[in-house]
Amino acid sequence: MHGAHRSGCPINLSLEVIGDKWSLLIVRDIVFSGRRHFRELLAGSQEGIASNILANRLNALVEHGLLTRHGDPGHKQKVLYSLTEAAIELIPVLVHLGSWGNRWLPVSDALSTRARLLGDGGPVLWQRFMAELREEHLGIPAGPAPGGRTVRERLQEAYLAVAEAGTTAPPR
Amino acid sequence: MHGAHRSGCPINLSLEVIGDKWSLLIVRDIVFSGRRHFRELLAGSQEGIASNILANRLNALVEHGLLTRHGDPGHKQKVLYSLTEAAIELIPVLVHLGSWGNRWLPVSDALSTRARLLGDGGPVLWQRFMAELREEHLGIPAGPAPGGRTVRERLQEAYLAVAEAGTTAPPR
Repeated sequence: MHGAHRSGCPINLSLEVIGDKWSLLIVRDIVFSGRRHFRELLAGSQEGIASNILANRLNALVEHGLLTRHGDPGHKQKVLYSLTEAAIELIPVLVHLGSWGNRWLPVSDALSTRARLLGDGGPVLWQRFMAELREEHLGIPAGPAPGGRTVRERLQEAYLAVAEAGTTAPPR
Repeated sequence: MHGAHRSGCPINLSLEVIGDKWSLLIVRDIVFSGRRHFRELLAGSQEGIASNILANRLNALVEHGLLTRHGDPGHKQKVLYSLTEAAIELIPVLVHLGSWGNRWLPVSDALSTRARLLGDGGPVLWQRFMAELREEHLGIPAGPAPGGRTVRERLQEAYLAVAEAGTTAPPR
């Protein structure tokens, strides 16, 4: 954390940490895509993040306690990023930002699907998603997934169904 | 709205509109303080916003459809800003940002009080607050306030109680 803050207001302090556009998009990509390596995050960015910005923001997220960085046991020479509990607890913020964007901005059909499903699912679905992220990133067992599919799998299936329909049918 | 977006993802689009730190702080100040004139917003900013940044961000908020600007019938030569429905529907985002900041960041006692009350009050309290903002900014009657006090009055009383206690007792 930085020593000097503009004010002690909780909204202001939150924006000092995550108010940078790219920072929250990186957290979004790690949460929804499961990408945890630098090159995956760079290649998978729908917004085309530049590699120097990605490197800079990953450092800031580590410094602010939203990510931890460690060697990946499965890949020599690769660094793996993990979400912290603080980052996982941003899920409700991301869900509400997504729902607000869905309602007020010109979102694309496919990309709005996950936000809609999460918004409709309510706190029970967010809590389950957060439990699964704790298992993936913090090693805390989440218990069996209802219906045998994780929340991310369900979101991804719904996204792909709409994305594929979009390639064969003309836009409405 | 701008014509070119980085992606159609609802979280990305939302951050393009409100991802600037100052923009969301200005919405916060209008929501919680009731300030609606340029000079009030400038003087009341706890973060010490510069007048050129305030002017620039107010213009952007009007352009993005979060504020409307009109002459104030009560004050010649003064411009009054009103929240739009889109801005009022950011309340759940502000509440979750505030709750997250309260939990994870070094917030000040007094300034965290409103965020804590709103978070604890849940959706019923946010809906009532949004109804009162619709009355204030859009002229849509909210009906009588429960207990005769508006949500903003209740938040303000709690804030002042903690702030005053903080001036007579040493910090913990």
